[in-house]
Amino acid sequence: MTQTTAHEREQLDHDRAPLVMIQPAPYNAEAPDSALDVDITPTDQHYVRSNFALPEHDGAVVVDGAVDRELRLDIDEIRALPAVDRAVTLECAGNGRLRQTPLPTGEPWGFNAVSTARWTGARLADVLAQAAPADDAVEVWFHGADHGPYQQFEELSFVRALPISVALDPAADVLLAYDMNGEPLNLDHGAPLRLIVPHWYGVASVKWLTRVHVSTTRLQHEFQTGHYMYEWADRPHEPVTLMRVRARITDPEPAAVIPRGTVTVRGKAWTGTGPVTAVDVAFTGEGEWHPAQLDPPQDASQWQNWSVRWEATAPGRHTIRARATDAAGNVQPDVPPWNRIGYGNNAVEVMYVDVV
Amino acid sequence: MTQTTAHEREQLDHDRAPLVMIQPAPYNAEAPDSALDVDITPTDQHYVRSNFALPEHDGAVVVDGAVDRELRLDIDEIRALPAVDRAVTLECAGNGRLRQTPLPTGEPWGFNAVSTARWTGARLADVLAQAAPADDAVEVWFHGADHGPYQQFEELSFVRALPISVALDPAADVLLAYDMNGEPLNLDHGAPLRLIVPHWYGVASVKWLTRVHVSTTRLQHEFQTGHYMYEWADRPHEPVTLMRVRARITDPEPAAVIPRGTVTVRGKAWTGTGPVTAVDVAFTGEGEWHPAQLDPPQDASQWQNWSVRWEATAPGRHTIRARATDAAGNVQPDVPPWNRIGYGNNAVEVMYVDVV
Repeated sequence: MTQTTAHEREQLDHDRAPLVMIQPAPYNAEAPDSALDVDITPTDQHYVRSNFALPEHDGAVVVDGAVDRELRLDIDEIRALPAVDRAVTLECAGNGRLRQTPLPTGEPWGFNAVSTARWTGARLADVLAQAAPADDAVEVWFHGADHGPYQQFEELSFVRALPISVALDPAADVLLAYDMNGEPLNLDHGAPLRLIVPHWYGVASVKWLTRVHVSTTRLQHEFQTGHYMYEWADRPHEPVTLMRVRARITDPEPAAVIPRGTVTVRGKAWTGTGPVTAVDVAFTGEGEWHPAQLDPPQDASQWQNWSVRWEATAPGRHTIRARATDAAGNVQPDVPPWNRIGYGNNAVEVMYVDVV
Repeated sequence: MTQTTAHEREQLDHDRAPLVMIQPAPYNAEAPDSALDVDITPTDQHYVRSNFALPEHDGAVVVDGAVDRELRLDIDEIRALPAVDRAVTLECAGNGRLRQTPLPTGEPWGFNAVSTARWTGARLADVLAQAAPADDAVEVWFHGADHGPYQQFEELSFVRALPISVALDPAADVLLAYDMNGEPLNLDHGAPLRLIVPHWYGVASVKWLTRVHVSTTRLQHEFQTGHYMYEWADRPHEPVTLMRVRARITDPEPAAVIPRGTVTVRGKAWTGTGPVTAVDVAFTGEGEWHPAQLDPPQDASQWQNWSVRWEATAPGRHTIRARATDAAGNVQPDVPPWNRIGYGNNAVEVMYVDVV
């Protein structure tokens, strides 16, 4: 565990102040509601997911395994590579867990374990090209510096794998990221270097990255085949991969008391198989679905804004539901099938307002 | 529809001010959260359920049908009968509808369509004894004065039936009630006379009662066999009758931010097949169930208080769940089977608090 200095501690407390803490150690926190009102989440409002205490990191990353040339790159060498800048919506696979019933095990995330930052880094594909992976490589394993006791394990470290096809695809824009919103990464977000995997649930974006290991076998590891698996009741388990399509309603607030009149209902929508192609909104229980105005994505890996005008002329309680559909034809379900650890709960959100 | 006088209108507005309106006309409103902190709900905080506009009522009730002696009793004659005083928890069958998924049709009740008032009235069994029902009577039909257009019906009036066995049972304490919390009924609660059926969902407690009709056949009517039916997906429909067992958590409030330390978690529990025999509480997701201290009912038809001490020593987000069990062995389910109109959703409530 990092021996944080007084200065680092002060900086951490400052960085964490706007967040809604879920767990102090390891530190996990949701974004505040207001963070969903803007397109780029300020760094100190970006949700934080950690599995272990803050680790030490020597500032370098090793590329090894089934490669022709092993590499050891320090942060300056990575910064010297062509830089890519992407706005990426990251969502914790456990986002929405609190609304899955029965309540699954795991951190009690509400709906704000989702944020969008601007990440700058070198392309993983460019780094791997230098190392020249073997033709029979099937995966790349990403090791974080974070480690420690974890549930039944006395000692575990964080490792996740990506298929070689994703890792080598320049268009996938998997980044070795060193800047977040134009500043060097802070401790909570993986300083000095983390992976950013657009379109995938956040678990793929390994923080405190120390090792990129090209492998000819598939990873068997707690964070790859133990946790972060959809444990369905009635069919084979499946790994958590791409973000499921979801729309959030950001305005009005749930249970808001609003005066009669024309209301603009707004929100965000995102998916790992995008872009989002439609958001439909329904009012007052049995109401029909109305298409919302949906903005195209500013960045293909960034959430999209939607809005719809609603004539709230009838006083009383009205329910509002928003349902997103994406380019792959995925539609948010009313009730996704239950899975034991409560991942990927992208059920249509139901909220209400009281019109007076 | 009643032509309300300016004075009546003023009184209505006064009576309704503390409530959370769901629908203005017909008037439907939930109790405020604070109403669940006390044993007897003040009249102006008691939830209101109406299907039609406020009706006119001439102050008398007719007892007819399969009886030896037809009766017409005015309110003074009913007040002259032996008076029974009962604290009765009434709950709308649609309470909790907003948390059923997919969202069913019907009024969007949250969780506060439940209240407990002290009702005073004559026993239905005493009145029926005067009328002498026929031996082949199977039901008693209760007509309210309220009527009007209703969904696909141009004109409908409110009628509900009880089995003759319930109606004739003096121990059931079905009341022709004229006082609520020691005062004559107000307009919203059925003035001048309503039925009170302990243990049953509120729909059975017909307001603005005008006619008690003893019948040798079973009622086929929108409010008996149309609405207020559990429309299950995979088995025959069933009528809504007795209240299902449920515990509510009243303290702390949902999403409360509370300081570390010992917390007393409190709530109410009730059932139509009582008394409630156990309330168990679980903390923090995967937590075990702990038995709460459960007070015996003060009145057999009244909600019960429960509480449990919780050492909230770990900062962070903690889920709290409370689950009631009753004398008939009914236990709150995590997910009750879905029904189309969303009745009887007594799912275990899941809330969270953030301990700092």
